[in-house]
Amino acid sequence: MASYLVTGASRGFGLALTHRLASLPASDVTQIFATARGDAPELEELARNSSGRVVVVKLEVTSEASIKQAAADVEASLQGKGLDVLINNAGTCHYAADGVRSMDNLAESFTINVLGVHWVTRTFLPLLQKGTQKKVINISTTLGSITRSRAAHYLPAPAYKISKAAMNSLTVQYALDYEKEGFTFMALSPGWMKTELGGGEMADLTAEEGAKASLDIILRAGQDLNGKFPNILVKGWEKAEGRNQYDGSITPW
Amino acid sequence: MASYLVTGASRGFGLALTHRLASLPASDVTQIFATARGDAPELEELARNSSGRVVVVKLEVTSEASIKQAAADVEASLQGKGLDVLINNAGTCHYAADGVRSMDNLAESFTINVLGVHWVTRTFLPLLQKGTQKKVINISTTLGSITRSRAAHYLPAPAYKISKAAMNSLTVQYALDYEKEGFTFMALSPGWMKTELGGGEMADLTAEEGAKASLDIILRAGQDLNGKFPNILVKGWEKAEGRNQYDGSITPW
Ligand SMILES: NC(=O)c1ccc[n+]([C@@H]2O[C@H](COP(=O)([O-])OP(=O)(O)OC[C@H]3O[C@@H](n4cnc5c(N)ncnc54)[C@H](OP(=O)(O)O)[C@@H]3O)[C@@H](O)[C@H]2O)c1
Ligand SMILES: NC(=O)c1ccc[n+]([C@@H]2O[C@H](COP(=O)([O-])OP(=O)(O)OC[C@H]3O[C@@H](n4cnc5c(N)ncnc54)[C@H](OP(=O)(O)O)[C@@H]3O)[C@@H](O)[C@H]2O)c1
Repeated sequence: MASYLVTGASRGFGLALTHRLASLPASDVTQIFATARGDAPELEELARNSSGRVVVVKLEVTSEASIKQAAADVEASLQGKGLDVLINNAGTCHYAADGVRSMDNLAESFTINVLGVHWVTRTFLPLLQKGTQKKVINISTTLGSITRSRAAHYLPAPAYKISKAAMNSLTVQYALDYEKEGFTFMALSPGWMKTELGGGEMADLTAEEGAKASLDIILRAGQDLNGKFPNILVKGWEKAEGRNQYDGSITPW
Repeated sequence: MASYLVTGASRGFGLALTHRLASLPASDVTQIFATARGDAPELEELARNSSGRVVVVKLEVTSEASIKQAAADVEASLQGKGLDVLINNAGTCHYAADGVRSMDNLAESFTINVLGVHWVTRTFLPLLQKGTQKKVINISTTLGSITRSRAAHYLPAPAYKISKAAMNSLTVQYALDYEKEGFTFMALSPGWMKTELGGGEMADLTAEEGAKASLDIILRAGQDLNGKFPNILVKGWEKAEGRNQYDGSITPW
């Protein structure tokens, strides 16, 4: 019996999360607000076939005006009830082919991956405070772990790594501010998935596998995960090495 | 026999670092480029009395044009030699009185504390590559440690903490990219000091004590500190608790 909002649900992992949430029994999931900033034909088809469970909402995470309008739309749709779970999934991965020195997209990455998460979170906070579950899941990546950065050095995406480290720090600031109200804020690593951002077929998991493993954590999560950075658990991948290990452990910052 | 560049040397810790560097023998320190973005009477007086060892350079870290002009000035002054040590000290601390939700200064903090460090570093990199020591010290703070954020929750400065966590991640990206060339990049915590940013008299150390302890590390640092986050060591403070412990250890990210 929980309502969800997933940002960046037009494609990739956000779309897979929405699909999977829509397949769960109404005892777990009552309504899914799935946001897209532009046309999203696959998401719209899913919504049409969902008997009203999936509601598409327009939302551009870099625009506070767009976020406020989205929150007003969701509030109207909830008819006095709160929002239970917010999944900040929208994100981008910028590359710098010649290493960090050539990085010219850090501000842009930061606006989408950090400010976007901050603005969406604070705008939906009043609705979440009225909700029963009070969970906020910020989709992160082990590439954002500063501790593990040596293992990720092969991937020339410094703006992505730095912005996700900043998003992790933001997540913990919220976790500490709102834990007394019963909130759980976490930074969740969904694994390396075959999406556009993930680089396609080379990745380890399908978006559906990542979505299943992520929701296994999200559905069960209690306040013990507040301010934490959990990794997914996937059978057969618990003992792989480095970035490709999906053992359900907590990633060090 | 090393040349130094210190940003944000108009006052506070940067000025104290410049004073201390100027007091060291020429066998350790040949020349100090001390940058200020505006009028800096104390620094200018120090330079006047330094017999040419301290050179004041105009530099605004949020302007790539200003940084390029500063690098050209320093290059001319070095007459074909390289720059040995860069200390990225300029920084700002923004508060959000009503907690992270009320934070409206993250982009500004990020521009100064992260983009500023990135732009200064990459612009001076060619001069540093010609230098003999190849050290880049990014002045950080234990408040930027995500791992230790619970202990720092009392201080309502989320934009500061998040931007310094991002700067730490940036530091490690540079450390990994340039270690093969013999560089040492580190994020250094100078302790809580009685500067404007530090909040004045309540702080633990004078800027001079912080500068001495920081230079103890900077002067001796070898590549074992590359990509690390060292804390200063101060006699009498090794066994204090939490933020106020200055035991020379490596802070977790
Ligand atoms: N794929 C992986 O291997 C992997 C691994 C770890 C973490 N993640 C994280 O998972 C999340 C989703 O990634 P993905 O692989 O599904 O990427 P993707 O296929 O590129 O999809 C990104 C989604 O974010 C949306 N988005 C981007 N910028 C936006 C903005 N400014 N406003 C609103 N929406 C925006 C996109 O909308 P449009 O369709 O309108 O562009 C799209 O729905 C990201 O946060 C990513 O960091 C992915
Ligand atoms: N004080 C502490 O307890 C403490 C603890 C840990 C870390 N730190 C770090 O130490 C560094 C220096 O701090 P502080 O205590 O000396 O602070 P401060 O007294 O406020 O001095 C800040 C310095 O940074 C310069 N600056 C600020 N914005 C700038 C910009 N956009 N371009 C160029 N210069 C700029 C200031 O120049 P103007 O004079 O022109 O404003 C000044 O020289 C910071 O990175 C801070 O995070 C301080």
